[in-house]
Amino acid sequence: MVEIIDGGITTPQGFKAAGVHSGVKYRSLDLGLLYSEVPATAFKAFTSNKVKAAPVQMMIKDDSPKLSAIVVNSGNANALTGRRGYEDAETMQRAVAAELNIDPKEVGVMSTGLIGRFMDMHKIQYGISKAAKQLDVGREADGLLCEAIMTTDTIKKECAVRVRLGDGTLVYISAISKGSGMISPHLKVLHGTTLTMITTDAVLTPKFNEVYQSILDDSMNMVSVDGDQSTNDTCIMLANGMAGGQAADEDPAFIDALRMVMTKIARTIAMDGEGASKLITVEVTGAETKDDARKVVKTIINSPLVKSAIFGSDPNYGRVMMALGNSGANFSLNDVHLTIKGGDMEVPILDSGAPVFQEERSVEVVRMAMDNKEVILQLDLGVGNESATGWGCDLTYDYVRINAEYAT
Amino acid sequence: MVEIIDGGITTPQGFKAAGVHSGVKYRSLDLGLLYSEVPATAFKAFTSNKVKAAPVQMMIKDDSPKLSAIVVNSGNANALTGRRGYEDAETMQRAVAAELNIDPKEVGVMSTGLIGRFMDMHKIQYGISKAAKQLDVGREADGLLCEAIMTTDTIKKECAVRVRLGDGTLVYISAISKGSGMISPHLKVLHGTTLTMITTDAVLTPKFNEVYQSILDDSMNMVSVDGDQSTNDTCIMLANGMAGGQAADEDPAFIDALRMVMTKIARTIAMDGEGASKLITVEVTGAETKDDARKVVKTIINSPLVKSAIFGSDPNYGRVMMALGNSGANFSLNDVHLTIKGGDMEVPILDSGAPVFQEERSVEVVRMAMDNKEVILQLDLGVGNESATGWGCDLTYDYVRINAEYAT
Repeated sequence: MVEIIDGGITTPQGFKAAGVHSGVKYRSLDLGLLYSEVPATAFKAFTSNKVKAAPVQMMIKDDSPKLSAIVVNSGNANALTGRRGYEDAETMQRAVAAELNIDPKEVGVMSTGLIGRFMDMHKIQYGISKAAKQLDVGREADGLLCEAIMTTDTIKKECAVRVRLGDGTLVYISAISKGSGMISPHLKVLHGTTLTMITTDAVLTPKFNEVYQSILDDSMNMVSVDGDQSTNDTCIMLANGMAGGQAADEDPAFIDALRMVMTKIARTIAMDGEGASKLITVEVTGAETKDDARKVVKTIINSPLVKSAIFGSDPNYGRVMMALGNSGANFSLNDVHLTIKGGDMEVPILDSGAPVFQEERSVEVVRMAMDNKEVILQLDLGVGNESATGWGCDLTYDYVRINAEYAT
Repeated sequence: MVEIIDGGITTPQGFKAAGVHSGVKYRSLDLGLLYSEVPATAFKAFTSNKVKAAPVQMMIKDDSPKLSAIVVNSGNANALTGRRGYEDAETMQRAVAAELNIDPKEVGVMSTGLIGRFMDMHKIQYGISKAAKQLDVGREADGLLCEAIMTTDTIKKECAVRVRLGDGTLVYISAISKGSGMISPHLKVLHGTTLTMITTDAVLTPKFNEVYQSILDDSMNMVSVDGDQSTNDTCIMLANGMAGGQAADEDPAFIDALRMVMTKIARTIAMDGEGASKLITVEVTGAETKDDARKVVKTIINSPLVKSAIFGSDPNYGRVMMALGNSGANFSLNDVHLTIKGGDMEVPILDSGAPVFQEERSVEVVRMAMDNKEVILQLDLGVGNESATGWGCDLTYDYVRINAEYAT
């Protein structure tokens, strides 16, 4: 029903994109623009960090139900910049509005990069003007916008699908995202440094917000590279309705399609975590509450000891249980089951509170399962029916290198 | 009033110690014994991780008000070992009791090392018998016990003080500890992998428990190497009363002295965190509640981004504010002050929500302050009068190396 296609942010009808070099960064693209020919219903989610970057503060204050454009810069987060930073965010909004002949309130602003430096607004304004002239449709434009929002990212994060709704309408959904470090978003609708833009030509009404939050809670909000939530996390979906048909708010095919797109983006962010060599997927079942299941997933994927053990394919599975014990979730040790999967191997580890393996030889099997690009930890708590899945990555020498040298 | 002396665990009157090689580890000392000539009032605190090692479970169940001996092994944590592990802990207790001719319930047991493997009890019993014969007083015995409890520790952690109480009695307090990784203790009295033993010849009654908890909350419980709380953390103080005099439960000099000892031990654990090259001290003032102050300290010292920035002397102080914003504590950004201290430099960073520095040249000053063996982050939240101090360490290549290869 949902078909993954080779597409990008401008694949849904009526969207154009651009990515340019404004000079904030030395050499790479650093300013992007997304535009919808008609004002789109906007679904917005922002970081719940109490220290919020200027553009996030401004968009929360604006609370615009419709957006026609989103401008995004990388290289400077415009965070911890006080009143001047706020004014700079407003200036970005006005500059885009003037170029595109739209209402400033219909312009979303996102920033990512270094915290605590003022924006060079000459460069930004030059970039906006340049980007507005280059707005275009197609895979090249998609790629330029994708590139302009990258910081320490090593791969482009985009995903596009096509889905036929219940009423026969064919709609497209596309998402792009950036994010590699300072990743542990807890995005709250209407109120990250993942920046994510989602476009769709489906018709959606503001009622869809609740579904949007629940999809974010199961996708973006279950990713953690380092447990550090950014001052800038932002995830905006623009639905411009150009595909026509009925509102897709409750259409199961649309909801499935969006969930698939966001899960794919979430996994890609985890896989491209700063310095990551492996994707870690944690699947928790048998929890008493959904909240318990999520807490266990988060505690395990954030544990530096679990992450470094997986980096080294070190079969030190006791650390997974240590993390479980610290999660605050309810469980009964005698009913806990732990399985480690990697490649085509599936190795039972813990049964009734004691490890299955003792012999050196059998421990070697665990190491082989861990020696794969994706390691899956399956943990059944044995006390209920709730479950959650989350994604993280291993802790490597490169994570330390990247973050010991970021500002310099 | 409190005098730091060159002493160890047997410096207080009536204590003897031993450390031997039992064979659990390939080459290094791996089994230690501490003995008090008279049964000592015991103050016990254990990990609040729900997955508790067998010896921790046993000691909580025993709940013995007095202890005469503590046996400790390194190399195997006896955690996640089910019923068999519990029986092994009891066997250790009985073996020591038989050697020393005391009641098994008067024997405390501590284990540290790999999680999820059964103990080799032949080796352990051999070690206990050997240690019992070698019990001795003096700096050599102190050192042997200290060494026997080390795992990835690179330095011995011991501290001894002499203090004259209000009634004129001269008492000694001494502590030894181990702990380098999986360090984020939340020790709860009567209910770590830091193992800490404290001896004193002062007279204390069980009423002292409350003060003991509050000292732990300000010392051991404010240390974090990786935010991962162990299944085995244990901190036991033995007070054998051999100095005579009145009960020191409320003696300000005694309380000060114990606080000094425990703070020293806490700092030493942080400084010797796995792979650490720098000690990070976080001092939070102006918080609304004590709990808020502690949350802020913990969030900052556990942030991989803050820790790796300090490793690289990277003046990316925005990350400290990012961590503050995630702590859950109440603050008013416009009243927050941040100062970074290192060596003899003291650099104001944040004033009224915006950074003091913008120029590359002045940022260089921040780097110089950070380029010291101890970096102090002082943060005033500007909303109250509560404060807290905690200790952590930087995140280095060596942390990753040590923990990617631990079990192997």
